[in-house]
Amino acid sequence: MSRWEPNARGRLADAALELYRERGYEQTTVAEIAKRAGLTERTFFRHYADKREVLFSGAGELQELFVRAVADAPESAAPIDALARGLDAVSETFAGRRAYARARHAVITANAELRERELIKLASLSAALADTLRRRGVTEPAAGLAAEAGVAVFRIGFERWLADDGERDMTESVREALSAFRAVAAGE
Amino acid sequence: MSRWEPNARGRLADAALELYRERGYEQTTVAEIAKRAGLTERTFFRHYADKREVLFSGAGELQELFVRAVADAPESAAPIDALARGLDAVSETFAGRRAYARARHAVITANAELRERELIKLASLSAALADTLRRRGVTEPAAGLAAEAGVAVFRIGFERWLADDGERDMTESVREALSAFRAVAAGE
Repeated sequence: MSRWEPNARGRLADAALELYRERGYEQTTVAEIAKRAGLTERTFFRHYADKREVLFSGAGELQELFVRAVADAPESAAPIDALARGLDAVSETFAGRRAYARARHAVITANAELRERELIKLASLSAALADTLRRRGVTEPAAGLAAEAGVAVFRIGFERWLADDGERDMTESVREALSAFRAVAAGE
Repeated sequence: MSRWEPNARGRLADAALELYRERGYEQTTVAEIAKRAGLTERTFFRHYADKREVLFSGAGELQELFVRAVADAPESAAPIDALARGLDAVSETFAGRRAYARARHAVITANAELRERELIKLASLSAALADTLRRRGVTEPAAGLAAEAGVAVFRIGFERWLADDGERDMTESVREALSAFRAVAAGE
């Protein structure tokens, strides 16, 4: 926001994540985050509403990207294929960010309030996807079910990618989850 | 708990739901619930930890019933077919309870804190189902995906049953959701 604070937003996010992992989320204050980033509290609040927001500020963009890819799929694409495009679009944005994603995930998993927040964000993503599918002419209950499936595949593919030791990228992990999902639904 | 208060638990639940609908969940106190039910606050707290618990005390039993039916499915049953048995078992318990389920759902939908609580209960159900499937020998990511699918089908079948004007029972509505889910996954 100011040319005097290059990449303040990213520096604050990195500092926050470091502190949440070192001391725990509950124990960390905004003052400490700002100090670790070499910035002021005022700067912190120009970028984030509170210390929780640091962890979830990306959720809005992710949802927008997902929804846009589904909306832009060819008119002839079946709901699940439109969702597959959204999953690919979202997965690509995680390239090179596994260490950060892992650290963030560990912080969230360790805290009940943050886990709840994550559930709410995923429910919001599901509702937005169902809405997008309905606008593509998909009726209920198919739209709602497909949207829930899309979110489940995203979440489980993401978690498997985080847990993976190898160099597999998230796209591959999410595609594998989608295949497994189709197999499960087919009664395999 | 006492022979002097026949069906105290049910009377408290009915009174609470009435008041939540009349005045809103936030505005209702435990004292008012007890009074409406013709019981004391002390009796209320013998049955429920707080006013929120009145709405969610059934979730544990529902989860147990669902999990048991999945666990008891024939060894040869595919994950989705084991889940179908759980869905049937759970749906049956809602027979004759649509008016109550509708009122409860309206109260929950109107309050952000209660919606969050509902999400947490559903996440817990999903985790328990995934665990049950793993114990049946289902590997990941199939177990997690199947469990999420089971919860999505339950939730969407349930909501469609609530919204339905006719006399269709919940079993039918949930089975229809399961079919729609299979069709979506098959790319229809």
